[in-house]
Amino acid sequence: MPYISIEDHLPGVTGLLEFRKETSEPLRELTQILLRGPSTLTEAERELIATIVSHKNKCTFCVTSHAAAADAYFGDSETTSKVREDIQSAPVSDKMKALLTIASMVQESGKSVTPQAVEAAKQAGATDLELHDTVLIAALFCLYNRYVDGLATIAPTNPEYYKAMAERLKNNGYHRVKEGYDFLKSQVK
Amino acid sequence: MPYISIEDHLPGVTGLLEFRKETSEPLRELTQILLRGPSTLTEAERELIATIVSHKNKCTFCVTSHAAAADAYFGDSETTSKVREDIQSAPVSDKMKALLTIASMVQESGKSVTPQAVEAAKQAGATDLELHDTVLIAALFCLYNRYVDGLATIAPTNPEYYKAMAERLKNNGYHRVKEGYDFLKSQVK
Repeated sequence: MPYISIEDHLPGVTGLLEFRKETSEPLRELTQILLRGPSTLTEAERELIATIVSHKNKCTFCVTSHAAAADAYFGDSETTSKVREDIQSAPVSDKMKALLTIASMVQESGKSVTPQAVEAAKQAGATDLELHDTVLIAALFCLYNRYVDGLATIAPTNPEYYKAMAERLKNNGYHRVKEGYDFLKSQVK
Repeated sequence: MPYISIEDHLPGVTGLLEFRKETSEPLRELTQILLRGPSTLTEAERELIATIVSHKNKCTFCVTSHAAAADAYFGDSETTSKVREDIQSAPVSDKMKALLTIASMVQESGKSVTPQAVEAAKQAGATDLELHDTVLIAALFCLYNRYVDGLATIAPTNPEYYKAMAERLKNNGYHRVKEGYDFLKSQVK
């Protein structure tokens, strides 16, 4: 049971974002810019960064949501599955392998990021902006994972919930859905 | 040396916030609401949460900046110093001891926050909103600490730099300073 009173039909981060709309507005905006704004990284690649960090933080709600969003972009679930198993052998570009490695280091600590890992990413073609955004996306999901689990929110077990959420994240991004989350109500189990 | 090209005279988070203004705007806004917006926690108490998390993440730039900001509010440096040594014997209220304990747990992982710690905070009078904000501030500084150290930014060694920064944070909060950070230039060493 969540540690604070949030609406029953709003699991994971959704109930928290509705609990305090003043803070969720800039948080949604930051996420929208980083994950959906103009970028030389695709939306799928940016969702992969969110996925690997949430996976390493063992945040069930976040990893399932963002893997589902990445799957919706990739059109398969193999990529997210393999990235979670082993970045180096996953079917992504060398640049993405280097950036996902940096994201994994950020998950541990900012201090874990090595000059060698950054150099490898630059050698693979990563720009300063891509490095910046990778670190900030990874740091943002260290925030989200702690927000979601630190207040003991519920993670639905029904895969259909995450599929519906992923479609929403793909089609509407991270802005608040004015009509609310009632469309997900029947799938919270 | 920082991993990406940021302006030499902008250490710590300041250079990063100038590097990518699209993302720094919502990040500043979120920080302003959480640390300076209307709250039943004082500004000093909220800076203490930022301080304990940054201290545990060993982020020199952040812990020195936010301890200096808390000191500016408290009018002494004893409180931040004692909180960093041992929360339970520090000169803060029982409610703040409980909330700082929760913040320390969030620094480790969202999953580290125990129902007992939350119950202790509630017994000491913490409201749902205070619990929410404590967890989100702690999570936000897990983001900042990783952002600052993950890109290997510089932390000035001159204490005067942090005093000047603390005055700015006390008087102007977290919004962007339109005239820039030139006032700090002479103190970056």
